[in-house]
Amino acid sequence: MPMIRVELLKGRTIAQKREFAEVVTREAARILKCAPDVVDVVFQDVERHDWASSGRLEADR
Amino acid sequence: MPMIRVELLKGRTIAQKREFAEVVTREAARILKCAPDVVDVVFQDVERHDWASSGRLEADR
Amino acid sequence: MPMIRVELLKGRTIAQKREFAEVVTREAARILKCAPDVVDVVFQDVERHDWASSGRLEADR
Amino acid sequence: MPMIRVELLKGRTIAQKREFAEVVTREAARILKCAPDVVDVVFQDVERHDWASSGRLEADR
Amino acid sequence: MPMIRVELLKGRTIAQKREFAEVVTREAARILKCAPDVVDVVFQDVERHDWASSGRLEADR
Amino acid sequence: MPMIRVELLKGRTIAQKREFAEVVTREAARILKCAPDVVDVVFQDVERHDWASSGRLEADR
Repeated sequence: MPMIRVELLKGRTIAQKREFAEVVTREAARILKCAPDVVDVVFQDVERHDWASSGRLEADR
Repeated sequence: MPMIRVELLKGRTIAQKREFAEVVTREAARILKCAPDVVDVVFQDVERHDWASSGRLEADR
Repeated sequence: MPMIRVELLKGRTIAQKREFAEVVTREAARILKCAPDVVDVVFQDVERHDWASSGRLEADR
Repeated sequence: MPMIRVELLKGRTIAQKREFAEVVTREAARILKCAPDVVDVVFQDVERHDWASSGRLEADR
Repeated sequence: MPMIRVELLKGRTIAQKREFAEVVTREAARILKCAPDVVDVVFQDVERHDWASSGRLEADR
Repeated sequence: MPMIRVELLKGRTIAQKREFAEVVTREAARILKCAPDVVDVVFQDVERHDWASSGRLEADR
């Protein structure tokens, strides 16, 4: 039932996502006290021209 | 005003999305008592390597 | 795996949410071809002073 | 800390997103009383066949 | 059609949200070239114990 | 820049959220190769009558 959504700048590999999903699910189960099989993790890649911090697109830095 | 967001694994056809959006809008209007023209439905396709259940990416199953 | 998120103005009853979740799950299974037990529906109530259409808060209409 | 997410139909240019992110960040800082460097703006392009209003896909209008 | 979601720490007044929604809608219409009446702005207040930056809850700062 | 959103059934303590935010931030930094200070974690409590799995509200189980 925890639903974990991860927005991140494009460019991470599937291997990185695989490891992160494993670790986050294990830690969610341990800390939040739930069965691992109710944890969902969804990644959402964001292009550098679609993310602005301090009003400036990442693509412009 | 109901805003309905549907995250789903990539691969459904536009015909499926069209039918689902129609049905969900009609049911939202009927059950939640709102005009159909204030219902928005947004689909968001998720790649199999971007969704993990039980800590395992769909792409690895 | 479909994850369906419904943002709606506060005020709908639990009975309405119950019926809507049932119908949407059944239709998701039928149209999007998935098992009902992988469908999650999450409702998020929004206060009238937290939703603006056309630049005007619902609370001000 | 304000995190501002903008879902919009695909087709706007990077120049439009750049200007919108700048303006929204400046106005968030001014009106919501926060430092500009804690404001994040994320754009999410939506295909015309992924957005339905009144139960009809934008792609079908 | 632009759907703008603003997550922010609890504590801003309705007057601040009203002004921000007005300005953001006007600027969305001007910059993103859409009618003001298709712009939705939704605010979501977040408690200080529900937001962490750099791994530390806002409530602990 | 990773923005991590955690939807979970209401009832976890602040201590649990604190620990989860710490761990997830540390692991995001390690695995996704980013500075810890660009990681945001936001929790969103969901009532049991606002979450349905398999078409049934958690409140009805």
